[in-house]
Amino acid sequence: MEHIRRTERLAVISQILLTNPNRLYNLNEFGQMLNAAKSSISEDIELLAEACEKYGVGAVETIPGAAGGVRYRPRVSKEKAAQIVSSVAKKLSEPGRLLPGSFLYSSDVASDPEITRQLASVVAAKYMGNVPDFVLTMETKGIPFALMTAQALGAGLVIARRDSKAYEGSAVKINYISGSDNERVDTMAISRRAVKAGQKALIVDDFAKGGGTLQGMTEMMHECQIEVVGVEVMIATRQPKVKLCKDVSSLMWLNGIDRLTASCDVVPDERYLMDAASEGKVEP
Amino acid sequence: MEHIRRTERLAVISQILLTNPNRLYNLNEFGQMLNAAKSSISEDIELLAEACEKYGVGAVETIPGAAGGVRYRPRVSKEKAAQIVSSVAKKLSEPGRLLPGSFLYSSDVASDPEITRQLASVVAAKYMGNVPDFVLTMETKGIPFALMTAQALGAGLVIARRDSKAYEGSAVKINYISGSDNERVDTMAISRRAVKAGQKALIVDDFAKGGGTLQGMTEMMHECQIEVVGVEVMIATRQPKVKLCKDVSSLMWLNGIDRLTASCDVVPDERYLMDAASEGKVEP
Repeated sequence: MEHIRRTERLAVISQILLTNPNRLYNLNEFGQMLNAAKSSISEDIELLAEACEKYGVGAVETIPGAAGGVRYRPRVSKEKAAQIVSSVAKKLSEPGRLLPGSFLYSSDVASDPEITRQLASVVAAKYMGNVPDFVLTMETKGIPFALMTAQALGAGLVIARRDSKAYEGSAVKINYISGSDNERVDTMAISRRAVKAGQKALIVDDFAKGGGTLQGMTEMMHECQIEVVGVEVMIATRQPKVKLCKDVSSLMWLNGIDRLTASCDVVPDERYLMDAASEGKVEP
Repeated sequence: MEHIRRTERLAVISQILLTNPNRLYNLNEFGQMLNAAKSSISEDIELLAEACEKYGVGAVETIPGAAGGVRYRPRVSKEKAAQIVSSVAKKLSEPGRLLPGSFLYSSDVASDPEITRQLASVVAAKYMGNVPDFVLTMETKGIPFALMTAQALGAGLVIARRDSKAYEGSAVKINYISGSDNERVDTMAISRRAVKAGQKALIVDDFAKGGGTLQGMTEMMHECQIEVVGVEVMIATRQPKVKLCKDVSSLMWLNGIDRLTASCDVVPDERYLMDAASEGKVEP
């Protein structure tokens, strides 16, 4: 009977922890909900933590003390990260994705809930020790990736706009150089209510070429006295080598284009290169 | 020993099913990964399904046959849906949210990963019997809500833009009347590659007043020979009563404003009104 009850409790605890990554839950909450002793809940969580650890599906962490509790962190093993990034790079290298003007068609990938969730789990894993208060992105295409990253971190999301909107209230507005080729000056704005001085931000976007937009977001954060803990993009171009924004980390690189097959050569960043041994392995 | 192994398997199966809603998994995949007989996996899934059912945390469904498998559907009970919608309506009614120009400040709510995920689970529950191929939204503010709805349904996301972009390839572009007050004509565009004739779309946005944008998206779908299975918004204004788009379903209604407290009166749609009995109940 206890066996059956444990199974039920595990299903419920898993559902709550796994769908609310990085949120701290008090063991008493679970105890009340499931009508079980705290000691039983503790044992359940220990079993869950061991299983997650064993199969590399994230970490269930217990924080001791009065303000403590338990939380799920969607950690990703190095091997799993390589598999995720490689499969997306392969998809982006399919023939037919090269558009007139030498653009890479990536909107389907950048807005896919499952792909962005997986890529976000790879990025989020880097910031588990230094969790930002919010993820900042610039409208429009990077929003899904940024939202999934925010969710994986248990952080908020702030969207910078090309212009301030009446329905966002008073705004902080800056000018920035939008690219390295042309010296065009653009503006970006964020709602003043959306951020507070002293917070920490992670900057996330789907694509970087010159790095102007990323640098604009970095300057915006300085303007608001917010610390930037990192700058992460899904895809960056190899050229120009020197970007306007320093310390940009990219999951993938756009190496070059092939007009004959209308395709782009997108490769994983070297951190996510798979060794031959794991290449054939299939995971759901 | 079998008891421990079952616990481990349950943790892994839960993690995979719960983080990939609506995706069909073959029992053999789980069997191979966990090195267990198909009959054991079947029993695991039965236990998981019973527990999810019992605690109202979504449904684990088994589809028989060769093309079958198991999937998780984040169903939400009527009571839970009422709790979610009521708590968000309450938050949006807080003093200080009324902006100059009689706008409601809702960007923090509309971009919160956890709030949008919960609201999306309420919307998605309506379409489990008629799952769309993709969710369509118009940039920018509704994207998080639309993405979470797409994820809950296991569907894709398509983002309509105010203008076509070179990096989205050739586009379908339409003109539409942007509101009922003013007869302003705006344009919206979607990438031709993003959709196919014969697909089904669910239109989702964060806010509706005149309904012009929703009607624009509806017409865009007709233009592309795509069936619209529903039109869902997070908040709609009571006025104008007659919207440009018919059959709009809203989670919440903006009843009116109070300039003295700078607040808006936002209430759940009548489908999500809580009865007094469940009002005091706390759920994580």
